[in-house]
Parts: sequence; structure tokens; C-alpha cells
Amino acid sequence: MKIDILTLFPEMFQGVLGSSILKRAQEKEVVKINLINFRDFSTSKHKTVDDYPYGGGNGMVLKPEPIFAAVESITDHEKARIIMLTPQGKTFNQRIAEELKEEKHLIFLCGHYEGFDERIREHLVTDELSIGDYVLTGGELATMVVMDSVVRLLPGVLGNEGSVETDSFSTGLLEYPQYTRPEVFREWKVPEILLSGHHQKIEEWRRKESFKRTLERRPDLIDINKLDEKDRALIKELKRD
Amino acid sequence: MKIDILTLFPEMFQGVLGSSILKRAQEKEVVKINLINFRDFSTSKHKTVDDYPYGGGNGMVLKPEPIFAAVESITDHEKARIIMLTPQGKTFNQRIAEELKEEKHLIFLCGHYEGFDERIREHLVTDELSIGDYVLTGGELATMVVMDSVVRLLPGVLGNEGSVETDSFSTGLLEYPQYTRPEVFREWKVPEILLSGHHQKIEEWRRKESFKRTLERRPDLIDINKLDEKDRALIKELKRD
Repeated sequence: MKIDILTLFPEMFQGVLGSSILKRAQEKEVVKINLINFRDFSTSKHKTVDDYPYGGGNGMVLKPEPIFAAVESITDHEKARIIMLTPQGKTFNQRIAEELKEEKHLIFLCGHYEGFDERIREHLVTDELSIGDYVLTGGELATMVVMDSVVRLLPGVLGNEGSVETDSFSTGLLEYPQYTRPEVFREWKVPEILLSGHHQKIEEWRRKESFKRTLERRPDLIDINKLDEKDRALIKELKRD
Repeated sequence: MKIDILTLFPEMFQGVLGSSILKRAQEKEVVKINLINFRDFSTSKHKTVDDYPYGGGNGMVLKPEPIFAAVESITDHEKARIIMLTPQGKTFNQRIAEELKEEKHLIFLCGHYEGFDERIREHLVTDELSIGDYVLTGGELATMVVMDSVVRLLPGVLGNEGSVETDSFSTGLLEYPQYTRPEVFREWKVPEILLSGHHQKIEEWRRKESFKRTLERRPDLIDINKLDEKDRALIKELKRD
């Protein structure tokens, strides 16, 4: 996969691209990540990239020319998904991550402080994404979040393929409680069942705890139509308690 | 505000803490950010911080001892909000950012790959937060997102206080389209109304566009009970179109 990132703050990406999964994915050549400072594409004397909004109001607006020029300088940009990070976008989720991992080429546009001129939205980008209902200073952190969640799904990136499968949101259920050594920490013990060695009972306990936690915290994640008889009975039982 | 971050990957924070709003907020001494590698608090020979899950299964689980020890090494940790980033947490939003900005001391716990031993959840943390319904490699990016959205709300951080007020999610409406120079880019023109200089008409056009965009993309954000007569009439009109 090829990823191009248009930003005014390429240095923000340093730590994140240089560690953990994104570092490993680049070293394995599963992904090639390229930072482009679109200020370099401004043709004005002072390398301006923003200007006052027509009609008045606070803040500045990113001009169309440098961003169009920067995107059009990228080879095969016509075939890429061009993603603008914005609070006005579709809310990013695991389903969109799964969809994006099938792409060969992603281009991310990061605004900073200011918004984008509407013509960029209308005539250049293919997708507008928001990572959640909160305001960030810029699109940089949002780009890192989307990139991390997509790149970790690419084959060969995570060591243990099994861990992708059992993640929250892939199954529609929140994870069950996990415990590790020591068996007793301060006065708090690991539940007996997990020490029993009885695999089927452990499986059942975990499934029940997953449903319990999901019902308590995120009942919206459960799609009742996708459950089998046994799980429906389990939910009924939990709701009775 | 004081922020402590417990992580196994402190280097991931470099670029983000060294630029933009978080850099400025630290320079102005509005916030003091401290990175703690909780591996330093492991008492085992090989500085182990994780172990196999009781009851079997894929992946590793973060042990309670180093994390309790790291948190308890922080002065006045009893008075802090101790926030765990996890897909099982409450979904972070602008309302929670507004709430957290009132705190004097935040401690963030970042897991990486693995989950946390349940006893950390039950007996140490005060809040569990998720930044959205997608899976990330670790809590580091989620911590940066929460931090950015909270710190930018602190007095004196953003240059122009007005820009906090008109942000999306603060008003419950998505932003209206913005345009800047040039008036014509390629064949695409700025809407006439914005060049008219008629402030009241511009205001009305923007309010209408905000409602239009919110109804189209995020009708869930509109709280009909908070609207005045005029806005309700506007929504009716837009729904008719």
C-alpha cells in the first residue's frame, strides 16, 4: 500500500512513523509512507496557504491552489482514495478500516486550525472522515489514527494473525476480562474458573462476560439478528439478572 | 494542568508533543506533560511487563504490579483522574473534553497490543475511554487525541478564543461551507451571496447551510428541544425540499 500525507506539520509524524506497527510495516515494505508539505506548492511570494474567508468570520481558510497542485503532483493520484479529515466527515469505524485496507493508494489531507475551501471538498476528495465527535487542532492526529487502524490489518504486519480476529468491533462484542500472574495481587484474586483448566467452561464464562460488558456499556454494538439461539438465550438470562 | 502518560513507547510522543498546540501550551506553561515508561517499574530481572492470560488464549496481558507502582510513584496521584484508553471505554466526545479541561491532573495509561489485567481496571483507574469504534495498536494515539482536544480548550492556548466557540460539536451543528480567494478557481466560483457584503443575508445563508449539512450527514447531532421557533421552521423547510 502507498500512503501520501499532505500536511503543514510533517514533523508531527516523526515519533509515530518511527515506532511500533507503522515502523514495522514500513520496514517490511508492506506500506510506503510519504509526507508532503503542501506549503511547498504555494506559488505566492510568502508561501501562503490560507486566506480570510469570503463573507467574514473568525479563522482562516485553506486555499485551493496549493492543495490541488500537491495532490496532482502525486503519480497515479487519479486512482487513489483521497481522504479529507474533518469534523464534517463520515464517522470512521472498523468497517471503514476493513474497506480501506483493500486499497492500493491512500492520500490524506490534513487541515490545521483552519477549514478547507469548499472547492477542495467538492472537486478533489473522494472521502471525508471524522474519527469522532470532538474537535482536534488538525487532521494530523486523525490521519495517524486512521493509518494505524488500517495498516495493522494488512497481511504480515501483526505477528499473530489471531489477534486481529478476536479484537473488539471485529466480533461486535467487547472483550471479556483478562487476568495474568500473579494469581493474587494485593488482596485481589483471579477468578477460580480461569485456573480450573476446564476449557469449555472458561469459554462459556468468557462469552457471558463479553455479553455482560457489552450490554452494560455498549448495547448499541449488538446486532440481535446476527446471534444464534444460544446467544439469544444468554442475553435473555443476563437481562433478567 | 499536569499530565502524566504511562507508556512503553515514549518515543511515539516526540513529534506530537514537540509541535503545534501541545508545544505551545507547554511553552506557555499552561500544561506540564511528563512521560513515564512503566517498564522501569518492573521488578523482574528482564523488566517484564506482560504475561500469558490465565485460562489461555492469544496475546499477552499487562501485569498489575508495574502499572500500580508507576502510578503510585506520581505525587498526588490520589487526586488525579486516571484514564485508561481501551476499546471497552466510554466513547470520548466534546462534552467529556469540556469536563476534563476542569481537572488539575490527568494520568493516562496506554496499553500496547495487549490488554490490561482486570485488577488495574477495577482498582486503579477512574475512567475508561475509547476514542471511537475502531481498533488501534495501542493507547498512545488515543491519548494524543484526548490530550489535544482537552489542552486546546485551556485558557490562553488558542490565539483566538472565538474559534473555540464556533467549532463543530460545541454548537451541535456541522460547519457551513467556507471559501477564500481566488473568487474563481478553475471554473468553480464562490457563491454570489458571500461577495454581497450583506451581513445579515450571509448569516442566514450560513445557518441554512449548516442545518442542511447536519441534516444530510449527522441528523443525530441536532437536539430539536434546544432549537428556537425560527430554527424549527428552517428545518421544516429543508426537510420539504
